[in-house]
Amino acid sequence: MKNLVVGQSGGPTAAINSSLAGVVKMALDSDKIKTVYGMINGIDGFLKERLTDMERFRDSERLRLLRQTPSSYLGSCRRKLPEPQENEQIYEDIFALFEKYNIGYFIYIGGNDSMDTVKKLSAYARKKGSDVVVAGIPKTIDNDLVLTDHTPGYGSAAKYVANSVRQLSADTGVYDMKSIVVAEIMGRNAGWLTAAAALANTKSAAPVDIILLPETVFDEDKFIGRVEEVMKNKNSTIIAVSEGIQDKDGKYIGESSSALMGDGFNHAALGGAGRIVEHMISSRLRIKTRSIEFSTLQRCCTQSISLCDYEEAFSAGYEGTSHALEGNTGFMAGLKRISDKPYICEVSFYDVNSVANLEKRVPLEMIGSDNMSVTQAFTDYALPLISGEPELIYDNGVIALETLQR
Amino acid sequence: MKNLVVGQSGGPTAAINSSLAGVVKMALDSDKIKTVYGMINGIDGFLKERLTDMERFRDSERLRLLRQTPSSYLGSCRRKLPEPQENEQIYEDIFALFEKYNIGYFIYIGGNDSMDTVKKLSAYARKKGSDVVVAGIPKTIDNDLVLTDHTPGYGSAAKYVANSVRQLSADTGVYDMKSIVVAEIMGRNAGWLTAAAALANTKSAAPVDIILLPETVFDEDKFIGRVEEVMKNKNSTIIAVSEGIQDKDGKYIGESSSALMGDGFNHAALGGAGRIVEHMISSRLRIKTRSIEFSTLQRCCTQSISLCDYEEAFSAGYEGTSHALEGNTGFMAGLKRISDKPYICEVSFYDVNSVANLEKRVPLEMIGSDNMSVTQAFTDYALPLISGEPELIYDNGVIALETLQR
Repeated sequence: MKNLVVGQSGGPTAAINSSLAGVVKMALDSDKIKTVYGMINGIDGFLKERLTDMERFRDSERLRLLRQTPSSYLGSCRRKLPEPQENEQIYEDIFALFEKYNIGYFIYIGGNDSMDTVKKLSAYARKKGSDVVVAGIPKTIDNDLVLTDHTPGYGSAAKYVANSVRQLSADTGVYDMKSIVVAEIMGRNAGWLTAAAALANTKSAAPVDIILLPETVFDEDKFIGRVEEVMKNKNSTIIAVSEGIQDKDGKYIGESSSALMGDGFNHAALGGAGRIVEHMISSRLRIKTRSIEFSTLQRCCTQSISLCDYEEAFSAGYEGTSHALEGNTGFMAGLKRISDKPYICEVSFYDVNSVANLEKRVPLEMIGSDNMSVTQAFTDYALPLISGEPELIYDNGVIALETLQR
Repeated sequence: MKNLVVGQSGGPTAAINSSLAGVVKMALDSDKIKTVYGMINGIDGFLKERLTDMERFRDSERLRLLRQTPSSYLGSCRRKLPEPQENEQIYEDIFALFEKYNIGYFIYIGGNDSMDTVKKLSAYARKKGSDVVVAGIPKTIDNDLVLTDHTPGYGSAAKYVANSVRQLSADTGVYDMKSIVVAEIMGRNAGWLTAAAALANTKSAAPVDIILLPETVFDEDKFIGRVEEVMKNKNSTIIAVSEGIQDKDGKYIGESSSALMGDGFNHAALGGAGRIVEHMISSRLRIKTRSIEFSTLQRCCTQSISLCDYEEAFSAGYEGTSHALEGNTGFMAGLKRISDKPYICEVSFYDVNSVANLEKRVPLEMIGSDNMSVTQAFTDYALPLISGEPELIYDNGVIALETLQR
C-alpha cells in the first residue's frame, strides 16, 4: 500500500475545497491507499515536509464543512518549477521525499501554472522510471484552461458577479438622478468572469448594458459614445469592466494607476481599470459614477457557491483520484459537456501536456459585434454553471468553515 | 375610507423592502384603507405626484419577492424638509396633495433624516388640525437611531460584514507569508457596523484582531504597535476600519484622500480610510497589506439577509401601520428587546420627537479598553441580530427581485 499526497496551488476559489474533499474522500475509501497526506502551501510546503494527515475527514460532518470552506484549506503557493535541465536538484529532492513518505500518488489542484507542475513532475517520473502517479484537478475563477468545458471555481465566481451586479443595480437606481456603477472584475487575460455580469440580465430587468473584456480593444471615444446612448433612455446602468482591458497598443487601461508587481509568474498585478473608467465617464459626461472593485470576495464568497460548481468540483476531485488510482498519470480531470439543454456534463481526462501553459479566452462568437457586449452563445454556455444553491451550514449567523491549525 | 401613502427615504438596506411589504400587507388587508399608494423617490416624488398603486402586491408571490428585494423598491430621496417658519409653502403643498389624493395615513420608512420628516409633518398636521396620521418605520444599516434596541437593516448588513470578513480571512492566509487585510466598513459617526466584524470570531477561528471605530481616537503609533504585536504570532489578520475614524483633533483619517462632498445633509462623503491605513502598515511594517472597501454591497446583499432582520423589518412595517390605523400619529415603530437569552424582541412605539436628529453611537461598555476592539457586551447584543437565513427564491442562479417600472 502506498500513500497519497494532495496539494493546492495558485489563487483561491469558493469551490477548490470541494475538489479537495472529493480527492480525500476517494483516497480515504480506497484500499490502495494507506495514509492521505495534505501538503501545506503546495509544492513549497512539500519540499519543507509540511504535511498533514487527512484522516480526520473520515468524519462526514467535517468533510461537508470542508466542501463549503472557500479558499485553499491546505494553503497555497505560487512556485513554478524550473525545467529539469535548469535545476534537476529540485526534482531529485521531490522524488526523494516521495520515497521517504512512500508516496505513490501526487494530486495537485490548481490552475494553469499548477498544471505545468503536473506536466513536469509526470514527465520526470516517466524519464526516471518512477511509478509515482501525478495528476491535476483544475480550478480557477478565470475559466481559462483549454480542453475542459469550464473550470471548477468559475461557476461560483460567475454567480457572485451576476448576483452582485443585479443587487448593485437595485441600489444605484434609487435616487431620481442619473447614476452609473462601474464594476471592476477579475480576469487578467480572459474575460469569462467579467462576461458573467450579463447573467444578471433576466426577463424582468436588464441592468447591465456594457461589458468590457480583455479580448477586445478598448476604444475610449466609442465607449463614451455608447454610455451616452445608453443613458439617454435609462436612469442608471451597470458597466462591467475586466481588470485587464487594454487599448489598441496593448497597454492596460488600469496600468497607469497601479504599480507593476511581479508575482513570480511575470504577470503584472493589475488594478485600477474601474477607477480610470469611472473618471472617464464622470469627467466627460458629468454623470454621477461610482466604481466598485469586486476584489477578492469574488473568489471566496461561500454564499455565492453554485450547486453545479459545488458538485462538479467534488466530482473532478473524486473521479480524477479514482482514475489516478487505476494507474493513469500525467492527466488533468476536466469537464466535458454532453448537452446544453438539458445541461449534462461529465468528468473526462485530458493529457496534461495538451493543457499546461495554454490559455482559453472568450471566443469571438460569444462577443457582441460592438465589442462591448456578449452574445446569446455566452449566456447559453454560462447560465447552467451558476445554477442551484447548496444548503449551507451556519454557526451563529456565520458560515461554518474548516480551518487548518498550523 | 381613506387612502394610505408609503415612501422610502435615505440610503438603501437589504431589509427595507421587507418593511415596505409589512406596511403594504397591513394596509391592503385593512378595511379602513381604500387605495395604498407608494410614493416614488420619497417626499420629492410625492410633491411631483409620482405615485404607484400597490394593489399588485395582493399577489402573495410578488409580496414575497418584494421582501427579498434589496434597496428601496420605491426609490429614495435625500430631501430634508425646512422648518415651517422658513418655508411654509412646501407644507401647504404636501397637505394640499393629502387632500387631493384623500390621504389619511402617511408612512415613511427611513433613517434619522426621515424621522425628521415624520416629526415635522406630524407637528404641522397637529398645528393645522389635520387628522392625517404620520408615522415612521426605521431602517438604517448604521444602527444609529435612539430608543429602538436596533434598526431594521442593521442585522443583515452586520451579517454581510461578519461573513465577508470570515471568508476573506480564509482567502488571505493561503500563502506562506505574512499578510493583512484592511476592511473598510460603512458608518460615518457610529461604529456599529464595523464592530460587527467581531462576530466573525467564533470558537473555531478568530481572524479579526483589531477593530477601529469612529467612537475612539485613532492613534497611529499605538495602532502600528498593536499590529506588530498581533503579527508576531500570526500569519495573517483582518483589521476592520470604519470609514469615519478620526485622529485626536477630530480630523477624518480618510479625508486627506477623498473630496468632501455635500450630500444635502452636510455630511462629508467619506472614503479612503482603509487605503490610508493599508499604506501606514505596509510602509511602516513592510507587511503585505491589501485594503478592501466593502462599498455599497454591504447594504444591498440579499444572500446576507438575516432571518431575524427579515422578520423584524416586516413586523415593524406591519405593526407600525396597524398602530397608525388605530389613529396614532407622530411615532416611530421601534424594536424593544425583552430578553437576551433567549433573544426576544417586540415592536414598540416611540414619540418621534424623542428620536429625530439624535444619534446613538457604540457605548463605552462595548468598546475594549485598548480602543481597538469590542467587548463581550457587544457580541451578546449583536449576535442574535445576524441569526438565521430566510429561504430565497432564485431565477436561473440569480436572486429574483421586484423592479418598479418607471
